[in-house]
Amino acid sequence: MDAKMLLVDEVRLTPILISDPPLLNVQGVHQPFTPRLVVEVITRGGVSGLGETYGDGVYLEIARPIAEALPGRAVTDVNSLFALTASADPALPAAEGGGVDVDASIDAGGLRGARTADKLRLSVVSAFETACLDALGKSLGLPVHALLGGKVRDTVEYSAYLFYRWAAHPGAGPTDDWGAALDPAGIVAQARRFDRLHGFRSFKLKGGVFAPEREIAAIRALAEAFPGRPLRLDPNGAWSVETSLAVARELGDALEYLEDPASGTGAMAEIAARTDVPLATNMCVTTFEEVPEAFAKGAVRIVLCDHHYWGGLHRTRELAALCRTYGVGLSMHSNTHLGISLAAMTQVAATLPGLDHACDTHYPWQTEDVVTPRPVFRAGRLAVSDAPGLGIELDRTALATLHRRWLDDDGTLRDRDDAAAMRVADPAWRTPPVPRW
Amino acid sequence: MDAKMLLVDEVRLTPILISDPPLLNVQGVHQPFTPRLVVEVITRGGVSGLGETYGDGVYLEIARPIAEALPGRAVTDVNSLFALTASADPALPAAEGGGVDVDASIDAGGLRGARTADKLRLSVVSAFETACLDALGKSLGLPVHALLGGKVRDTVEYSAYLFYRWAAHPGAGPTDDWGAALDPAGIVAQARRFDRLHGFRSFKLKGGVFAPEREIAAIRALAEAFPGRPLRLDPNGAWSVETSLAVARELGDALEYLEDPASGTGAMAEIAARTDVPLATNMCVTTFEEVPEAFAKGAVRIVLCDHHYWGGLHRTRELAALCRTYGVGLSMHSNTHLGISLAAMTQVAATLPGLDHACDTHYPWQTEDVVTPRPVFRAGRLAVSDAPGLGIELDRTALATLHRRWLDDDGTLRDRDDAAAMRVADPAWRTPPVPRW
Repeated sequence: MDAKMLLVDEVRLTPILISDPPLLNVQGVHQPFTPRLVVEVITRGGVSGLGETYGDGVYLEIARPIAEALPGRAVTDVNSLFALTASADPALPAAEGGGVDVDASIDAGGLRGARTADKLRLSVVSAFETACLDALGKSLGLPVHALLGGKVRDTVEYSAYLFYRWAAHPGAGPTDDWGAALDPAGIVAQARRFDRLHGFRSFKLKGGVFAPEREIAAIRALAEAFPGRPLRLDPNGAWSVETSLAVARELGDALEYLEDPASGTGAMAEIAARTDVPLATNMCVTTFEEVPEAFAKGAVRIVLCDHHYWGGLHRTRELAALCRTYGVGLSMHSNTHLGISLAAMTQVAATLPGLDHACDTHYPWQTEDVVTPRPVFRAGRLAVSDAPGLGIELDRTALATLHRRWLDDDGTLRDRDDAAAMRVADPAWRTPPVPRW
Repeated sequence: MDAKMLLVDEVRLTPILISDPPLLNVQGVHQPFTPRLVVEVITRGGVSGLGETYGDGVYLEIARPIAEALPGRAVTDVNSLFALTASADPALPAAEGGGVDVDASIDAGGLRGARTADKLRLSVVSAFETACLDALGKSLGLPVHALLGGKVRDTVEYSAYLFYRWAAHPGAGPTDDWGAALDPAGIVAQARRFDRLHGFRSFKLKGGVFAPEREIAAIRALAEAFPGRPLRLDPNGAWSVETSLAVARELGDALEYLEDPASGTGAMAEIAARTDVPLATNMCVTTFEEVPEAFAKGAVRIVLCDHHYWGGLHRTRELAALCRTYGVGLSMHSNTHLGISLAAMTQVAATLPGLDHACDTHYPWQTEDVVTPRPVFRAGRLAVSDAPGLGIELDRTALATLHRRWLDDDGTLRDRDDAAAMRVADPAWRTPPVPRW
């Protein structure tokens, strides 16, 4: 391998809009189309590596100077990628109405804790890191997991991601045949279909949509329909400490874990001290800076890592080492994403000895993708690819189509905003302040 | 790259004895020859990778089953190496006289905290991991740092490692022209020679040999001879809390840090709470298991990592991430080692953004090596090699000579024992219990 062949020759940033079903959460409802950014890093050797991250304007803004700085650097140099973001000074969204507003201080579509400039930068760096590792792996004929010290398992388990949802978007948008799921029966039906299609063993319900008693009933119904299967409930911090404890008492025997019942490390620690139900998070521990306080307070028993916002696959491994050292469990968070990120999750997950719980994935809700063929879950698991790089191929026709959609958009969908999407149905809607219940 | 070419074809374990000067420490004196183990991993592609670790019998015992299990596995598979040690059940040394004896519960030559089976296993795994990474890098034409995410610096700074020493070993052994260094003038002369030869900017004195007032005087003399240069003192846990605090008061203005003044996390925490002098350790934090308590108690401000006993280069990076997350500084520990380990230290150090202090290295005391050419320090720094693998070549003639010495040894030197070496001069010597002062 001539080292020059590993130098970056060109970087392509392609913002796209991908269809998303009308899935409900504490902030509102998923937009009919969600922005994602596809990063391609092409080496002098003519090899193309792929990465994927959030596609909102602020991410694009950070990505551009990195893309400009990359040519001439080696795809092996991923440790120094973060330093390239120093010049990027992303405009953080102002609080709505100018006041202190929970709605604006957290990511409008991501539900991943407070939005900070560093977190935004890391989320962008991760896509470049993934693309570099993919290009490196393809250049060397090695899977990405081999570039991370090698896999310790041959398959990675994922969990079904259940959502309350409408049958259709309130305005124009893509349609599907899943129908509405707004009560226990609807959630169980959705779970049965996921089980049938993908064989998922464990189920996660996105909560925080209805009053806790309704969501408790849904979990109870799942427990009856799928006895002994791991169940999770995630209201995205919508509950008070007392409500969280009440739910924990009600569902203690049924839950694998309760995810982010309340907002903030303090509230989570208070709950953790008063219940045996394990608490998981992808909201109060989303950066390395947030780890020491949360671990010291015993606020969480499981961290849901996400290579996007932790800053890439190497940093995911570092987080895993932290969790291992402190006896904290590990799983993976997922937001609307395509097959590039699913492949990246699977490759890094394969290398983590302490991955104790099935990973979340939003992927089965995505009917569109830019990779081909679509990954296939068997018994809720993905086989860890040993093909070079991430083991995926870019479908340029699909990419062009989804980019065209982004170009044609008048700007209303380019920044994901689940509250704005909800206002199409309910013009008075504002994301409720937490705790809502 | 045909993946089959990365499969291990053969593993060679070569125990050697390397000459070592009569350097003094709390346990006794360095033996005239010290055991090391050289690990060679040869791929089906005919590429040989090198690793190095402790060479005492117990390490050899653990290494053999790993060496047997490796053929047919890929050199990319380093995350799963530790699992190969499960069958190894090393015999831990019994306490001398059968009682509870500090002398036996800590590593007789390494001064690196309590000896445990896991720590021994990790120390062996690290040599195989390094050898695999070297072989992988050579096979791919990439430096090891590129296999760890790429370097973030082009040179790595090392510190001069000053020792109280005798002019010659009490019995037979190698000789040199350094002469004795048993007082402040001798230490300053040694430092001047290190400065002249290698350009080291910072100096570490191995203490715990004489009463603290004598070692304080040596540091004072160094501070006068080298104003403004970083100085460190390491008595290997020989002092009580009160003595440690007294030394800290005396030397507070002169020290970069005080290393392991007292034994154990509890004592270190007590000292840390009562002085502003930063404390460093390679004795109370030597495994991931020991991290949480030490960090929670604020026992150390700097961890001296050592890829040998932390389990390899990947784990060194994980420790670095832990330290970064908890705001703890990072440097590197060193024991008697050859150019293989020095190259490994330099490669991984090059990838660590938070390496805040010059690394220790024992290497300048080693007149023999199995790599060629010898690495050269300039202004106290080593250039980070961009050559494939570790960037070193094995000198098979030298290896054969040093192995022959090991074969010819009657067993007295095959297990490093600084107390036994001291008994050659002083038959009544027993490693003093700590705190000694």
